[in-house]
This record gives sequence, structure tokens and C-alpha cells, in this order.
Amino acid sequence: MPPPSSATAGQVIKCKAAVAWEAGKPLVIEEIEVAPPQKMEVRLRILFTSLCHTDVYFWEAKAQDSVFPRIFGHEAAGIVESVGEGVTELVPGDHVLPVFTGECGECAHCKSEESNMCTLLRINTERGVMINDGKSRFSINGKPIYHFIGTSTFSEYTVVHVGCLAKINPLAPLDKVCVLSCGISTGLGAMLNVAKPKKGSSVAIFGLGAVGLGAAEGARLAGASRIIGIDLNPSRFEEAKKFGVTEFVNPKDYTKPIQEVIAEMTDGGVDRSVECTGNINAMISAFECVHDGWGVAVLVGVPHKDSEFKTHPVNFLNERTLKGTFFGNYKPRTDLPGVVEMYMNKELEVEKFITHEVPFAEINKAFELMLKGEGLRCIIKME
Amino acid sequence: MPPPSSATAGQVIKCKAAVAWEAGKPLVIEEIEVAPPQKMEVRLRILFTSLCHTDVYFWEAKAQDSVFPRIFGHEAAGIVESVGEGVTELVPGDHVLPVFTGECGECAHCKSEESNMCTLLRINTERGVMINDGKSRFSINGKPIYHFIGTSTFSEYTVVHVGCLAKINPLAPLDKVCVLSCGISTGLGAMLNVAKPKKGSSVAIFGLGAVGLGAAEGARLAGASRIIGIDLNPSRFEEAKKFGVTEFVNPKDYTKPIQEVIAEMTDGGVDRSVECTGNINAMISAFECVHDGWGVAVLVGVPHKDSEFKTHPVNFLNERTLKGTFFGNYKPRTDLPGVVEMYMNKELEVEKFITHEVPFAEINKAFELMLKGEGLRCIIKME
Ligand SMILES: NC(=O)c1ccc[n+]([C@@H]2O[C@H](COP(=O)([O-])OP(=O)(O)OC[C@H]3O[C@@H](n4cnc5c(N)ncnc54)[C@H](O)[C@@H]3O)[C@@H](O)[C@H]2O)c1
Ligand SMILES: NC(=O)c1ccc[n+]([C@@H]2O[C@H](COP(=O)([O-])OP(=O)(O)OC[C@H]3O[C@@H](n4cnc5c(N)ncnc54)[C@H](O)[C@@H]3O)[C@@H](O)[C@H]2O)c1
Ligand SMILES: [Zn+2]
Ligand SMILES: [Zn+2]
Ligand SMILES: [Zn+2]
Ligand SMILES: [Zn+2]
Repeated sequence: MPPPSSATAGQVIKCKAAVAWEAGKPLVIEEIEVAPPQKMEVRLRILFTSLCHTDVYFWEAKAQDSVFPRIFGHEAAGIVESVGEGVTELVPGDHVLPVFTGECGECAHCKSEESNMCTLLRINTERGVMINDGKSRFSINGKPIYHFIGTSTFSEYTVVHVGCLAKINPLAPLDKVCVLSCGISTGLGAMLNVAKPKKGSSVAIFGLGAVGLGAAEGARLAGASRIIGIDLNPSRFEEAKKFGVTEFVNPKDYTKPIQEVIAEMTDGGVDRSVECTGNINAMISAFECVHDGWGVAVLVGVPHKDSEFKTHPVNFLNERTLKGTFFGNYKPRTDLPGVVEMYMNKELEVEKFITHEVPFAEINKAFELMLKGEGLRCIIKME
Repeated sequence: MPPPSSATAGQVIKCKAAVAWEAGKPLVIEEIEVAPPQKMEVRLRILFTSLCHTDVYFWEAKAQDSVFPRIFGHEAAGIVESVGEGVTELVPGDHVLPVFTGECGECAHCKSEESNMCTLLRINTERGVMINDGKSRFSINGKPIYHFIGTSTFSEYTVVHVGCLAKINPLAPLDKVCVLSCGISTGLGAMLNVAKPKKGSSVAIFGLGAVGLGAAEGARLAGASRIIGIDLNPSRFEEAKKFGVTEFVNPKDYTKPIQEVIAEMTDGGVDRSVECTGNINAMISAFECVHDGWGVAVLVGVPHKDSEFKTHPVNFLNERTLKGTFFGNYKPRTDLPGVVEMYMNKELEVEKFITHEVPFAEINKAFELMLKGEGLRCIIKME
């Protein structure tokens, strides 16, 4: 017997979505039409979504190009409503996390152990349509409303490529694990999969939002002995104590470059650093604050489109390493279910990342909180 | 019975050295006095030395600060004449390779598996004196002549810290293995220890001097399937064929950036690249030409002191890695004897790097060859 939701399979669904009509203007809850999933696509009902800074950047569209009208949102959890042609891995009723980057399973990146930058499904912030037909599945009175990074979770129903959906343990509480579909896993993976601090090592984390504190969770799990948090917003420091951050540095408190301050605190530099701000100066400091000989710095933040990374090449010759990562190098379909299991096994704490909750009708409050730097993650309840 | 050479132990030795009196002026063979080795120092007779581009940079002193009068030279092989207080690892008669960077064995770098940047003995291009007393061991009529990077091998006798001397197999021919004390090992180690290409992978090498071709030897040993050589000097290409370089690219033949040319040749970029030029544009190209997802670029060349490495941070976020290395990450005392053994076991070919030979009296010819980009290594025979 097919699950009840599949009664709507093959039909257009009318539902509510928060539409961004223009850059920087409050989202408007509209009734939209969601077309059925096409080849290799899945339509899902979103139950919970949260707001990540990447949504805010592209909604502001100050430093990033963005197309409008658009439905933002990419940190979420939902249930499969129906599947398109060729989808065999998922059936209606499956619990899934949509991810802004995908895994086709066939390309050189998917076959490489090192990469999660799938050629077919990697993040594309400019595309507002589905890859199968180059069209949107969302419309209002026949006028298309564009997608955002393949997810568009600020809608009761959305259509996502099957390669961008992680099937998770159906026992996992969706109002909690929704935050694992982007920011926290990004920070966690950046630390565990890319920076890989050894037990007892020192770590610097630039930016103590959910991504940075996800990195802090990773440092704690890896057994780092010193976790130094750097943020311009001192209100972040109180929260960060719950995440094992042991020392705090606010660049505003110093006149000299913050990399020099950190080098003095750590006898030449930290063993690992992870940048989770999107700010180019923080990226440069995060690189220059690692110890010569063995230091590894990892960039995570989404930079301004015109920003330039600059440093003296001797900083590399002195045996420092600089890397970057998307989504913490996790392959969405292969690895994300395991991150959910880390939460289910109580290795990873997720609750402490969730500081606010609003009903869908008040989604703009989540944007205001992010812009003010208040709290970490705000859960938006669709019903 | 002490070896004959130790008859001079404790005494000043008069011998010939090629002195650089001024930046960019031909060296002058002078009679100098070489003081006995002090605490933890070793005096050695140089039998063969060769010229590396790093000598030329600091002799030209255009892009690098340098002190004069100075005795250059750091690629060499010699025999211990006498040892100072506290030296227990070496005795007169031992065959040694002096190295521009050292290994004290005690510091955090020496104890780290990853680093060879010994706190005590790492390269210092500005210091022209020995660390024990801050003085030079070379003089002419009581006037000091300065050291260069702790080695100063353009002299029949020199004084070197024991931590900068690798004791090698006494059967190894010194006129061959002298070239392993800098350039070739640097390139070889940059490839084998830092870039670490997998079998079957594609590799780009910027700069096909001895360092770059040392990297090519490393790529061949690692089983790379494509070795792409990039050089502005097309005369390098003929020689490079002997080193397994399979494809050649001259940036002068293209109007577009060479990283784009390489990306087109390799379906998105090479798996590994190693920069062996010292040129900042080549460093940037070497980074930007590696494949996203898994590409690793390694910087080796000594940059201009005012140069700046610039790139868009998205090039990192796309999961590229950039590293730098000194001396191919080899620890001089621990690892260099093993590189000599690679030659003795016929794994590594050294002869093909040696394209010229001059007597000590004609050392300036070696400089002319390097400046003209002719040949790879020129051996300077001290007797
Ligand atoms: N690469 C990826 O896969 C990926 C995934 C998710 C998020 N991101 C990016 O990660 C970054 C963090 O996301 P978030 O949701 O945690 O954002 P957030 O706004 O909650 O946190 C960012 C923190 O950085 C601090 N900050 C800003 N500039 C700084 C500077 N110069 N020095 C020190 N601190 C500074 C802010 O005060 C803030 O506390 C964003 O750029 C986001 O776009 C990247
Ligand atoms: N990091 C270390 O431990 C270490 C050790 C030894 C040498 N080095 C450095 O390595 C570099 C190479 O040394 P070498 O002795 O082989 O020098 P070399 O002069 O024999 O070779 C350098 C080659 O690079 C080529 N080149 C210059 N600019 C280029 C560009 N923009 N694009 C492509 N090719 C370019 C030249 O034509 C030349 O063939 C030098 O910078 C040297 O100082 C570093
Ligand atoms: Zn996100
Ligand atoms: Zn793929
Ligand atoms: Zn050299
Ligand atoms: Zn040391």
C-alpha cells in the first residue's frame, strides 16, 4: 500500500512558500504551485528548515549574484512525497535531508575518495532551475519562481535531484537533525575530514556561528587540547563555552594582526585552523596563524565574489598547508546518514546549536536574528 | 691512529676560496684562513661543489638581501677534517654532504614527523656567521669573510654545524652525489614526500632546472602517467625528455593563462603540480592548474622578497590544496643518507643531471651557464 502522501503523485501541489521577490526585502509567504518531479527528481514535504548564513548572502545579493524571484533555504529535513522516473533509491515516506551539493555516484569526483564536488550536482549558486529541463518546478500563476542551490527548502513542498538527498534513520527527530544538512556538518567535517587535528593539538576557529561551532565539536571529538575561538562579536563567546572552546580572541581588542596575537599565545602558531566567517581578512589570518613546519589551515566561509587571498609565498615555503572544503568534504548520500547516526549515538550534540524556533509565518525573524548575530540556529517549523 | 687530515686539527688552515666581494661581480679566488671548528662544529674539506640557483639569487642580490664579502656555495660533498667540542657523530675521514638546513634532533620540528624546519638550524639567508659565537670562521688578513646559509662550500675548507652534515656511504662517488645535497633532493622530496602523486596520475612541473627535473624523477618513481613540463626556455625541453617528461608547454606560446592551457590538456587540471622556478606567476599558475576536488600544488622556488601570492579564495574552497617545502621535507641527517642509497641502488639516476664540469679556478663559468640557462648542474672540482 503506498503511503498516503503519494495520493498527490504526478499532480501539481499547491502549498505555501516564502518567496524572495527582491534582494534584501522581507520574504513573502505566497501560495505557489509545485510541479511533479521529473527524471531523477524527488518531491518532498519539508517539515523543518533552518537558516544558514549562505541564504542570507544570496538574499542580500550585495557581494554575490542572485536571481529573483527565488525560494531560498537549504538546511532542512523532510519526507519524500513522490519520485520521478529513474529514482530507485527512495520511496514515498522516506526521511531525507536535502543538501546543497550532490552525489551522482558516476563522475570522477564521486569516484574519488578525496572529493565531494560532484561534476553533475555540485553547488551552483547562479542556476535557478532544475538540470533535467532547465526549468523551475515552482510557479505562481504560471510565472516561474527560481530555485536556490538545488534545495529551496523555504517551501512546504520542494523538488530536489535524488543525488542531493540523504536518506536517514527514520527514528531521527527531524526538528533536530535538519541542522545537520548544512552548517554543522560543514564545520564538523572541515575539522574531522580536512584539518584532522591530532589528539592534544591546538586549534584556532575563526567565526563562532553554527559552522565554526560545528568545527569546535569536531575539535573536541578529535581530542584537541586547546580550542581558540576568534570572533568580532563578543556575545558569541558565552555560547561557545558550551562547545569546548577554551580561549577567546576578539580582533577588535588588538591593534596588531590577529595572527601575531595567536602566534604569541601558542609559541609560534596553532597546529590547525579553520575559517568559518566568509571574511577575506579572517581567511588570511587563519592561514598565517598556523605553525610553520606542520600547520594546516582550512577555509570554509563563502567569500565575497571580488575578494582576493593574498600572502607572501614564504608563508607556504615554511611548510604550511592551505586547503578549502565544501560541506566538510562529506559526500551527501554516502556520509551524511553516518553524521545523523553520530547524533543518535550521542557522540555529537545537536541541541546546543538550536537557540531559536519560529513558525513558518515568521520566517523573517530568523533573518533578523542572523543579521544581528543573535543565537546560532533558528528552526523554522513549517506547520 | 687518527687519519692524516687531523694533523691540522685545532689549527688555522690556509686554503683557497672563491670570495664574492660585491653583489653580481665575478668571484675572486683568494687565499683565506679557516679557523678551527668550535662547539658542535665540523671543519671539512670540500672535494666537489655545484651551483644551485639559490646561490645566484643571493650573489645577484637583486631580489634578496645579502651580506658581503661572502663565500657562497651549498651543494657539495666533502670529508671531515676535524671536529669541535661535543661532536660525537662524526670523526675525521667521514664522508659528508653539507646541507643549507639542519637537524638539531631536539626541537619541536626535529621531533615532528612532518617538519624539517629545525628551530636551531633552519635556513637563515641573512646570517653570515656561525651560531656558536656569532662570528665567521673565514678571514683574510684578520678581516672576516661571511658565511652563506651555514655551508659556504666554494672553499677548499669550510666550517659547518654538525646538525647540517649528513654522513653518507663512503663508497658513494662524491663527484656525483654532491648534487644530492640540495637541488635534486629538493625536487625529488617535493614530489615524493609532499605532492605524493598516486600511480597513474598526471603531474605538472613548472621550471625544468635541476630542481624541477628532480621532481620529474620523483614523478617517474611514483608511477605518474603524464608528466607535463612547463618552462619559458625551450632549450630545457630536449634535456627533460631524458627525465620522463612526456609533454611540454611554453607559456610564451600562448596568450591565455597557462593554467587554462593545462586545464584543457587534462580535463580540468592535473592531479599534482610542483613549482620549481622562484617566479611568483609560475607559483600562482601551479596552484590554479590543479584539479578541483583533489589537486595538490607544492611550492619550492625561492620567491622575490617583495612578491605576493594572490588568488581567488574560491580556488581553495573548490578543494584544492597548496603547500610549500624546504629541501623536499627531507630531514638532512636522518633522510639524506637514504637518498644517496637510492642512487647506489640504481633507483635514482644522478649522472643525467650533471651536464658540465669546471676546475675551481673557473667557477665563474658555472655562474655564466646558470644565467644563460644552459645545462643543469655544473660540477666544480676543488683540485
Ligand atoms: N563551504 C561550505 O560548504 C559552507 C557551508 C555552510 C556555510 N558556509 C559559510 O560559512 C560561514 C559561516 O556560516 P554561519 O552560518 O556559521 O554564519 P554566522 O553568521 O552564524 O557566523 C559567522 C561568524 O563569523 C564572525 N565573523 C565575521 N567576520 C569575522 C572576522 N573578520 N573575524 C572573526 N570573526 C568574524 C561573525 O561575527 C559571526 O559570529 C559563512 O560564510 C557561510 O556562508 C560554508
Ligand atoms: N625550497 C628549497 O628548498 C629550494 C632548494 C633548491 C632550490 N630552490 C629554488 O628552486 C628554484 C629552481 O632552482 P634550479 O636550481 O632548478 O634553477 P634553474 O634556474 O636551473 O631552473 C629554473 C627554471 O625555471 C624556468 N622558469 C623561470 N620562470 C619561469 C616561469 N614563469 N614559468 C616557467 N618556467 C620558468 C627557467 O627557465 C629555468 O629553466 C629556484 O628558485 C631555487 O632558488 C629551492
Ligand atoms: Zn549552509
Ligand atoms: Zn558525481
Ligand atoms: Zn640549492
Ligand atoms: Zn631541530
